[in-house]
Amino acid sequence: MIYTLEKGSYSSIAAKNFLNFIEKKEEIFYCPTIYNIFENLKKGYGVVPIENSIEGGVSLTMDLLLEYKPKILAEIIIPIHHNLIGFNKEKIKTILSHPQALAQCKNYIKKHNWKVLPVESTAKAVDIIAKKRDESLAAIGSEELAELYNLKILDSKIEDYKNNATRFILIGYDDLKLKPSKNYKGSIVLELKEDKPGALYRILKIFADREINLTRIESRPSKRLLGIYIFYIDFEYKNFDSSVIEELKKYTNYVINFGKFPSYNLIGEIK
Amino acid sequence: MIYTLEKGSYSSIAAKNFLNFIEKKEEIFYCPTIYNIFENLKKGYGVVPIENSIEGGVSLTMDLLLEYKPKILAEIIIPIHHNLIGFNKEKIKTILSHPQALAQCKNYIKKHNWKVLPVESTAKAVDIIAKKRDESLAAIGSEELAELYNLKILDSKIEDYKNNATRFILIGYDDLKLKPSKNYKGSIVLELKEDKPGALYRILKIFADREINLTRIESRPSKRLLGIYIFYIDFEYKNFDSSVIEELKKYTNYVINFGKFPSYNLIGEIK
Repeated sequence: MIYTLEKGSYSSIAAKNFLNFIEKKEEIFYCPTIYNIFENLKKGYGVVPIENSIEGGVSLTMDLLLEYKPKILAEIIIPIHHNLIGFNKEKIKTILSHPQALAQCKNYIKKHNWKVLPVESTAKAVDIIAKKRDESLAAIGSEELAELYNLKILDSKIEDYKNNATRFILIGYDDLKLKPSKNYKGSIVLELKEDKPGALYRILKIFADREINLTRIESRPSKRLLGIYIFYIDFEYKNFDSSVIEELKKYTNYVINFGKFPSYNLIGEIK
Repeated sequence: MIYTLEKGSYSSIAAKNFLNFIEKKEEIFYCPTIYNIFENLKKGYGVVPIENSIEGGVSLTMDLLLEYKPKILAEIIIPIHHNLIGFNKEKIKTILSHPQALAQCKNYIKKHNWKVLPVESTAKAVDIIAKKRDESLAAIGSEELAELYNLKILDSKIEDYKNNATRFILIGYDDLKLKPSKNYKGSIVLELKEDKPGALYRILKIFADREINLTRIESRPSKRLLGIYIFYIDFEYKNFDSSVIEELKKYTNYVINFGKFPSYNLIGEIK
């Protein structure tokens, strides 16, 4: 069982694509929120967005990873194309969508002088306009969502930047047999022991000394004090071994290791 | 002229507090969005939120700093206490507020099983419930907002974490005479030249060698490719000089220097 966001959401498209890399047959179940997906991890696996190329880290997923501490079993990178979904482009006054989708089409929306109304998900946005059938409303979402609700695509690829892509992760407490990949990555979270000059520098030196390539480093507040941060670090697994974690422990309050996982990049493979 | 968010917003409270540190008399003007504040910088100064101790960086402010490149003239850190504003706590079904405020009261809202409706600002949320006068609605916002709209505070200090604080910055193109502070900070943004092992490490070494204390490092996507990041780095100004920028240039595509500014910390000084 794989839990993900609502049918037609970009996460559900990611989940469908993950199925091609999972050896066993798995069924997809749809949840209204990222919370629900994490809560269902006792019963199965989850697919959630972790990072977008334009808007950055998905902070809710990042916070819940820390709280639920699942393994990351795989990641998949998918190009994201947004569509304007509605009835009549000339009559639009307000655009509904998830805040991330609205942010990724900021310039497009600004150009048209439309008002924005953030809602919980792209699926919810399309659901609202399908029910209201008010020509002054339109939604931003996937092609799949427009089909699902039998609504018109008034404009496609409306995202502001060409390289709009999102990285999704497959998470769970149990292992899962996956197809091999050319790239394997690792992911950890750590909290620095002290707020001193060079604290983060010492951490990065451990990676640099071993020529481990960091693919992402992102800070989040520790939620304890302004100025104390935790760091999410992703890296290519090559040259990594358990001695890294042992060394990191010297300079950190804690290290959470999400494990080694295959990375599948579908940019250029799906349109 | 100082532009900030709507009357009663946390930004407007920050702007009011900044007035105590500005030598000249300045008047405050209110804008509906962070965008508008940046657009008004040709005519005056701006006060915008940059970072919250729980939710992290305010990505819209971070993106616009890069686009408009103003100087950072000062920063102020203010404790944030959220209030439940409405009519009757027993009858509440839906909570309206800015997504950051909703996120900062996540556990409190979850405990009550209320639905959430994100809107553009805390001021907008209170405005909506004041107009609708529907007992099933409530808003999250400041004491000032409740007073302004003559609404009841049904519950106070409803934020999930005790150390909830937000850092606001005063920005502009022209200098402004400010009262001295015990702490001075600097802020830069840079894009790494290459995505190679140790690229960020080399950057941090420049600071570590000079014993410059970094107070914050946050990555944002470059908006060009997934995996290419820009870094926002704040530091204590002690030991910093222009040679740092010269050295940084060797390893980066660009460095933007927002300047040296006083830091005022009001935690413990205002309730």
